[in-house]
Amino acid sequence: MLLDAIFRMVPKTFAIVGMGLLGGSLAGALRRSFPRAEVIGVSRSHTNIKIACQKKLITKGTTQIKDAVQVADLVFICTPVDTISKLILEVDRYAKLGTVVTDVGSTKGALINWVLQRKFKNISFTGSHPMAGSHTTGVFHATPSLYRDSLVFVTKHHGIQRNALRLVTAVWKKLCRKVVLVNAERHDALVAQISHLPHLVAAALVEGTPSQSLAFASTGFFDTTRIALGDPQLWVPIVMTNRQNLIRLLGRFRSSISQIEAWLRHGQAQKLTQFLKKAALRRQNLHRK
Amino acid sequence: MLLDAIFRMVPKTFAIVGMGLLGGSLAGALRRSFPRAEVIGVSRSHTNIKIACQKKLITKGTTQIKDAVQVADLVFICTPVDTISKLILEVDRYAKLGTVVTDVGSTKGALINWVLQRKFKNISFTGSHPMAGSHTTGVFHATPSLYRDSLVFVTKHHGIQRNALRLVTAVWKKLCRKVVLVNAERHDALVAQISHLPHLVAAALVEGTPSQSLAFASTGFFDTTRIALGDPQLWVPIVMTNRQNLIRLLGRFRSSISQIEAWLRHGQAQKLTQFLKKAALRRQNLHRK
Repeated sequence: MLLDAIFRMVPKTFAIVGMGLLGGSLAGALRRSFPRAEVIGVSRSHTNIKIACQKKLITKGTTQIKDAVQVADLVFICTPVDTISKLILEVDRYAKLGTVVTDVGSTKGALINWVLQRKFKNISFTGSHPMAGSHTTGVFHATPSLYRDSLVFVTKHHGIQRNALRLVTAVWKKLCRKVVLVNAERHDALVAQISHLPHLVAAALVEGTPSQSLAFASTGFFDTTRIALGDPQLWVPIVMTNRQNLIRLLGRFRSSISQIEAWLRHGQAQKLTQFLKKAALRRQNLHRK
Repeated sequence: MLLDAIFRMVPKTFAIVGMGLLGGSLAGALRRSFPRAEVIGVSRSHTNIKIACQKKLITKGTTQIKDAVQVADLVFICTPVDTISKLILEVDRYAKLGTVVTDVGSTKGALINWVLQRKFKNISFTGSHPMAGSHTTGVFHATPSLYRDSLVFVTKHHGIQRNALRLVTAVWKKLCRKVVLVNAERHDALVAQISHLPHLVAAALVEGTPSQSLAFASTGFFDTTRIALGDPQLWVPIVMTNRQNLIRLLGRFRSSISQIEAWLRHGQAQKLTQFLKKAALRRQNLHRK
């Protein structure tokens, strides 16, 4: 079987659709880990392709998705989450039979549900989500080391082709610290907690603070609100595709804020101490500070 | 007048009551900026005095507040906010007539109200609050550069001795980036917004996240929750002395979270985009990232 062959071999040709921070960094990482492979960058922007070439992130660039995809063994879609399904269809139209396709989007539930209702002509798809990124965006900030210390989620779903899963997992293992297999539903619940809720909370903190007060903000405030720098064009589709989880979490978070208010209102210093002690201890126990 | 004389001269003797992170760092900074002055550290803990001596943060150490205070021109009280008023009384008992006293506590309203109701025998007091610190604590982590890039609030209040204010301001100007004069009420409203609310929110984020999810947390979550590492023994008195401001802010913050929930519930992506864009832009405009 073709996929078996691909898996036994080192992939020869990667196509990266989308030359932003994530796509550019991924391309650069693939070039490092697979020095003999062709790494083709696809972007609608000539400028982005030019920058990716200058930074030696890709071996070739094109504005035509067809040109890249028809020769690729593995295709990464590195565009905002609300564009991925449309691009999967386009990749399927031009790809060789047996091409494996994955993405780097931050939510998985809606996408995998959509995938499960499709029958692709040529490709098999499995989702990826590297827990890396930055408040910077664009290929200009891309760096081959972006994923080195990250965790990458790879989604399992019903009817997934085992070889596709193996290939995607094997390639990520070369690029990152750890690969975790997870189903899409669990994935979205998890990232809602550790990434999407903190993002909304950080934005609410900034928006709740008058500008004349922000002028006095210090390192603590800067750290707490750094993720609010993230690009809303990327974040809104992420939040919107994970809104069921987020609505639930925001409600719970509000209750926890109410609880703190009640302790303050009733002067319950001891309850507050217990709460802050537990939080400090649990935060301390995270392996990276 | 004695204070005038002190102000024209370089202070000869500083006493620092409390040899923790803030007191130890302040002592070290004073030694750098006033190399001929005596910098006496006061602590109940022999170990802390020993460490402060070994780190050359102080010229002398003592466990007896009296010994330090009776020879000091300027006394800094660097202990948790709920211990400051008691120590001011003790300093007043032993100090020379005209001794200036200040503190480094994170809230000022309750303390200054208390000061205004007193008549001191020997001292005049004005409050300070350096916007510096760290999630680490203890003299072991003290460093003379802790305040170098910070803003320091110095409180003005009715009936304050102008020379005391001048001396405290002049000394801080040697140690930090900027001194801002502010009344106690405005100070507390301000730090509730930029420091105390973010602290409670960060703790609520940690406490709202199950441990099995925390294991997958990444740099964004680490940054957002770093301040939750702060020592609850220091933080609870801060929060409790600023609870009127915090109760109001927590309520407003909850409304803003409700608003986000409503946008998600009704699929109002555009409202969310506007909100996140404004937050990202305002966060970007802060001079330090």
